[in-house]
Amino acid sequence: MLNNEMMKHLKIKNPIIQAPMAGGITTSNLVAEVSNNGGLGMIGAGYHTPIQSREQIREIKQLTSNPFGINLFVPNEFNVTPEAVQSANQLLHTIRKQLNLEQTDSFDIPEHNKIFESFIEQVNVVIEENVSICSFTFGIPPKEVMDKLKQHNITLIGTATTVREAVENEKAGMDMVVIQGSEAGGHRGNFIDGHQESLVGLMSLIPQVVDNVSIPVIAAGGIMDGRGLMASLFLGAQGVQMGTAFLTCIESGAHKVHKEAIFNAGEDQTTFTRAFSGKWARGIKNKFIADMLEHEMVVPDFPIQNLLTQVIRKTCSGQNNQDFMSLWVGQSPRLAKSQTVEILIKNTLAEAENINKQSFSPK
Amino acid sequence: MLNNEMMKHLKIKNPIIQAPMAGGITTSNLVAEVSNNGGLGMIGAGYHTPIQSREQIREIKQLTSNPFGINLFVPNEFNVTPEAVQSANQLLHTIRKQLNLEQTDSFDIPEHNKIFESFIEQVNVVIEENVSICSFTFGIPPKEVMDKLKQHNITLIGTATTVREAVENEKAGMDMVVIQGSEAGGHRGNFIDGHQESLVGLMSLIPQVVDNVSIPVIAAGGIMDGRGLMASLFLGAQGVQMGTAFLTCIESGAHKVHKEAIFNAGEDQTTFTRAFSGKWARGIKNKFIADMLEHEMVVPDFPIQNLLTQVIRKTCSGQNNQDFMSLWVGQSPRLAKSQTVEILIKNTLAEAENINKQSFSPK
Repeated sequence: MLNNEMMKHLKIKNPIIQAPMAGGITTSNLVAEVSNNGGLGMIGAGYHTPIQSREQIREIKQLTSNPFGINLFVPNEFNVTPEAVQSANQLLHTIRKQLNLEQTDSFDIPEHNKIFESFIEQVNVVIEENVSICSFTFGIPPKEVMDKLKQHNITLIGTATTVREAVENEKAGMDMVVIQGSEAGGHRGNFIDGHQESLVGLMSLIPQVVDNVSIPVIAAGGIMDGRGLMASLFLGAQGVQMGTAFLTCIESGAHKVHKEAIFNAGEDQTTFTRAFSGKWARGIKNKFIADMLEHEMVVPDFPIQNLLTQVIRKTCSGQNNQDFMSLWVGQSPRLAKSQTVEILIKNTLAEAENINKQSFSPK
Repeated sequence: MLNNEMMKHLKIKNPIIQAPMAGGITTSNLVAEVSNNGGLGMIGAGYHTPIQSREQIREIKQLTSNPFGINLFVPNEFNVTPEAVQSANQLLHTIRKQLNLEQTDSFDIPEHNKIFESFIEQVNVVIEENVSICSFTFGIPPKEVMDKLKQHNITLIGTATTVREAVENEKAGMDMVVIQGSEAGGHRGNFIDGHQESLVGLMSLIPQVVDNVSIPVIAAGGIMDGRGLMASLFLGAQGVQMGTAFLTCIESGAHKVHKEAIFNAGEDQTTFTRAFSGKWARGIKNKFIADMLEHEMVVPDFPIQNLLTQVIRKTCSGQNNQDFMSLWVGQSPRLAKSQTVEILIKNTLAEAENINKQSFSPK
C-alpha cells in the first residue's frame, strides 16, 4: 500500500496528478473525473479571468467531493517596445491572409501591473472558494502571496526544471514541487535557468532533485502509463503529473484535431517553439512552427506574442485546421489513447501493480 | 533472480553494460573489471587503429575470462571542400595562439574509402581475436559486414536514438539495441533522425521503443545508480549502459581534469556542441564551446573537425587545462563518484535490490 507524504498531504488515493493544461483542456468534467478516480484533478487557470476560475471551481464542486487543485501562471515582467510588437504583428500578416482574417495594426500592449492585479484576484478567488491545493508555473509568487495562501492552509505546489529551481521552490515555502523533465509538452516552467540549460531528462532530473530537496517531488514529462509511474517512483518521486495522457481522454476539452494529431505523431515529431506565445513550449511540428522558424527568436516575450497569435489560433480551431494551432504534446505521443479518465487511471495503476509484482532483483 | 534474454545472450550476471567511451577512457583495466564484476566491459575502439584494438583485446583477455565487447564507429560519408577545411582551420588560429601552438595551414583530408577500409580491418580483428560481442555507433554496417560477423556467432548490438532507428537496427539483424536518451553524454548516435528530432528523454524513449521492436533494448543516458537501473527495467529495458558513472571510476583512463570537472558540475551545466568533432555531443560548457558557439554550424562534418581540433585537445590535456578539452558527460553529473568499478557495480545492484523490496503498489 503506497501512502507517501505527498498523497497524505493532498488527501488522494493514487499518486497521479492531472497536469493543469491551460486553454480549455481541463474541463470541469476532466478535473472532477480525475479526483473521483482517486487522483488529483487540476484546473489550468493560466488564461482564466478570476470570474472564470470562480465559476469553474463551483462547477467542479458539484461534480466531486474529493480534493482538486488549481494552477496559476506567475506573471513575469516583459520588455517590449511598440515597434517590436508592430514588427511581430507584421510577421503574422501572411498567415492572416491565408485564413482570410482582417489585418490589425493596432495592438494595446497590456501592462504588467494589470496582469499582476488579475493574478492577485485569482489568488483571492482560490482562497474565497476554499480550493485546498494551488500550484504555480513560471516562477514563485512574492512572499506576501505565499504567506497569505499559507495562512489559509492551502497546499502550495511549485514548478521547477532544474535542481536549483527546485531548491528555490523549497526555500520559498512550497509544500511540494513538480519537476518538469525535458520530455514534457506545452510551456516550459524554467524561471531561473535558461531554456537550453533547463532541458533535463527525467532519468537524470528526478534523482538529482530528490537528493537536494526535502519536500516531496512530483515528476512530469512523458509519463503515460504504469511503466512511467513506477519508474518515476523508483527514481525517487512521490507522484507523477501526467499531461498528454489526460489531454487525449474523452473528458478533455482539447480540440479533436489536436487529439488526432497526437495519435498520428511519433516521438521524433515534436519540437520546441516560442513562436506561438513568446515562451518556449513543446508541440507537434506544423506549418506555423515551420513558417515562423526564422523569426522565433525575435518575437516578443510571453504573454505579448500569445495575444498576437490568439485570433489565428482560434480561427484555425473553428476551421479544424491544424496548420496554425498550437498542438502541445510531450515526447510520448505513441502511448496516447482515446479513453475515459477512469480507464486511464485504472489501467495505469493495474500496470504499475503488475510490474511491481515481478521480481527485478538483479542479483 | 533477474535472468532476461539480454543477460542470457551476453552471458553476464548483471544487466549493466559499461558504455564504450572512445578516446582512452576504456582502459583494459576498466573493461576487465566491469566484466570481472559480472557486467559487460566494452572497448571504445572508435578512434583505434586495428593494431591498437588487437593489442587491447589481447591485454583484456589476460585480465578477465568473462565476456567483454568492443564498439566500432560506422564510418559516415562526409562532404568537405579544401576551402571549408581551411576556413574551419582558421577559426582555430586564436586558440592555437593562446596555447603557443604552431599554426598549420596544410591539412590532408582523409578519404572516406580509407576510413572504411580501416573499419573493415577492425571488423576482421574482432573476428580473428574471437571477441564475442560487437556494438556499433553512428549507423548500421553494410549487410556483408553484418553477415560476416553473424557467421562467426558474434553478438551484434546497434545504437538508436528514436523508434525508427531502433526498428532499422532490428531489421538489419542486430541482436539487441542500445537506445540513447537525450540525457546521454558524448556523441549522439542518431543516424536517420536529425539532431533535434533525436533528443528524446528515456522516460519517453524506452516504452515507445520496446512497444515497437522485439529484440532486447538496453537503455543509455543519465543512468548512474540503482534508481536509474530499476527505472529503466520497469520502463521495459532489459539492461542499462552506463557511461559517466564508469568514466569517473578509478580504473577509467579519463583525464583527472575531466573527472574533476564532472564532480564540480550541475545537471544544468552541460550542452550540445559540434565544435569539437563535427558531430553533436554533450559535454560540460567550457571556453572552447563558448568561443566556437557562433561557428558551430559551419565546422566540417565528423571526423574532419575532430582531426582539426586533435592537437588542441591533446595539448590541453598535457597542460591540465580544461578550457579546450572535450569534457563529455551525461545529464547526471551530481551523481558521479570517485570509486572503483567493483564498488560502483556492487552499490548499484544493492540499491536496485533494496528499492525493489519496497512495496510501491499504488493501490
